[in-house]
Amino acid sequence: MSLLVVGSVALDTVETPAGKRDSALGGSASYFSLAAVRYCPVHLVAVVGSDFPGQNRDLLAKEGVDLTGLQTADGPTFRWGGVYHEDMNRRDTLFTELGVFETFHPELPESYRELPYVLLANIDPELQLEVLEQTRSPRLVALDTMNFWISSKLDALHRVLEKVHLFFLNDEEAKQLTGKTNVLTAAREILRMGPRMVVIKRGEHGALTLTEHGWFSLTAFPVESLQDPTGAGDSFAGGMLGYLASRGGRLDDGELRRAVAHGTAVASHTVEHFGVDGLLELDRAKIDARVREVWDLSRFELEEGA
Amino acid sequence: MSLLVVGSVALDTVETPAGKRDSALGGSASYFSLAAVRYCPVHLVAVVGSDFPGQNRDLLAKEGVDLTGLQTADGPTFRWGGVYHEDMNRRDTLFTELGVFETFHPELPESYRELPYVLLANIDPELQLEVLEQTRSPRLVALDTMNFWISSKLDALHRVLEKVHLFFLNDEEAKQLTGKTNVLTAAREILRMGPRMVVIKRGEHGALTLTEHGWFSLTAFPVESLQDPTGAGDSFAGGMLGYLASRGGRLDDGELRRAVAHGTAVASHTVEHFGVDGLLELDRAKIDARVREVWDLSRFELEEGA
Repeated sequence: MSLLVVGSVALDTVETPAGKRDSALGGSASYFSLAAVRYCPVHLVAVVGSDFPGQNRDLLAKEGVDLTGLQTADGPTFRWGGVYHEDMNRRDTLFTELGVFETFHPELPESYRELPYVLLANIDPELQLEVLEQTRSPRLVALDTMNFWISSKLDALHRVLEKVHLFFLNDEEAKQLTGKTNVLTAAREILRMGPRMVVIKRGEHGALTLTEHGWFSLTAFPVESLQDPTGAGDSFAGGMLGYLASRGGRLDDGELRRAVAHGTAVASHTVEHFGVDGLLELDRAKIDARVREVWDLSRFELEEGA
Repeated sequence: MSLLVVGSVALDTVETPAGKRDSALGGSASYFSLAAVRYCPVHLVAVVGSDFPGQNRDLLAKEGVDLTGLQTADGPTFRWGGVYHEDMNRRDTLFTELGVFETFHPELPESYRELPYVLLANIDPELQLEVLEQTRSPRLVALDTMNFWISSKLDALHRVLEKVHLFFLNDEEAKQLTGKTNVLTAAREILRMGPRMVVIKRGEHGALTLTEHGWFSLTAFPVESLQDPTGAGDSFAGGMLGYLASRGGRLDDGELRRAVAHGTAVASHTVEHFGVDGLLELDRAKIDARVREVWDLSRFELEEGA
């Protein structure tokens, strides 16, 4: 089954203690697409400017991402610049230049409207609503957001939340959205806002998932040679949704847990490399091997009879 | 099999967003003993002052902790006072009054010297060395410490590390001890200092264990009604070592993983209550039920054939 992603395609200038890249392919939709396309066909909706390098477009296409929905507008491509600290859990944003993103309105090609899996990557919730108006009862809609939209577009975000099944956010965003300091209480509260599943991303500490089936807490894969944390969350979402779509949409507890493990595996591989490089060398065999490592890392058996 | 613990018995004045206690039973050895005694006989070595309430002594004894090695000295009992922030991962120490602990030297009763399991709880590493000189080839020696000893008694700490099997410390202490910013690199480096197993305690994010068998990363049990984080690490160690001692000392990979799960279960129950209260109402049935919850929370299955 196929996936639709709507989000940003950007040019990232990133510095980490491990290296530096200038104007490299980035953006939530790029990371998501390059992760999910290891599992299933991916159809992209985004906008780039006239300065967007053809080689980036070729790269996405070569990897199998359908670019029918990628608009090209007059003006500069969205650019983001950031510097990570020695402790790469912390970063400073140097600049955010929206460029053509400022006037972007997502337009779904006719062939995209019936796609069964949808990721609304981190963009203005009003645009996310525009996307949903153009879709025809997708089977699973997943949502990502960020602190900026929680503070500036809370009403629109709530309207999106009523329409989605799966919501990705991090600890801080969960606390900000609910005003609760306990992340578990926050997750319960978020389920009452609409989604059936919430995945709290905790970076190097893994992911905490709450569904109608209950809690699932999975450790992150410990990464010893961290290169660049950019795109970890989007890759996680790509691995998770890609896996679910590849399984034909079964959403039982076992499949959801495995999907989180796939997200974990893909994200860990992403951050072991710079930018999207790690995703480019991934295939299902490598992902499955990493999923098995995550499994081995986190398993224990109960005593017999316990 | 029986356990020896050497550490502090204190009177704690603690305030958290959930409540306040004045001069309540505390100290690393108290928490450890009250956790481990759910599994096996526990023999305590520590010192209290003449002001130590008889009811605290009675409580420890009633729970089954052998107090033959508890010295009473002239002067005040060790007192600690702290206030936890709204985010209980953060706390401020208000006072630390060593009292009789200042001149304490551990003396092992003859009956304690052949005990097979030893926890050197968080005290001056020079005292920890004194303890080891009085033991007769214990089967398993575990060590806890804190940032203060890493900065002030590093040489002595290294001498202890050469003699112990299992080392408990937290993320920050691991980084401080090794100068490595990556916790995995730090854990590897610590194994080279002597211990065969290192358990990095990460509070609400669980525990990362490195042994000769490899890595094991276990999530914490998510606690929604956190009351008082004091003693979480000592309870964790008590549950882990208590479990290992109760199993007759098997140290294979499966037993170690289960032992970490027992530490996780006991610690989570401790912080759901104030002070040592949670430990007092624990029994093996409750612990086993919580271990099963931890198991259910963190498990996933691989796809067939993967």
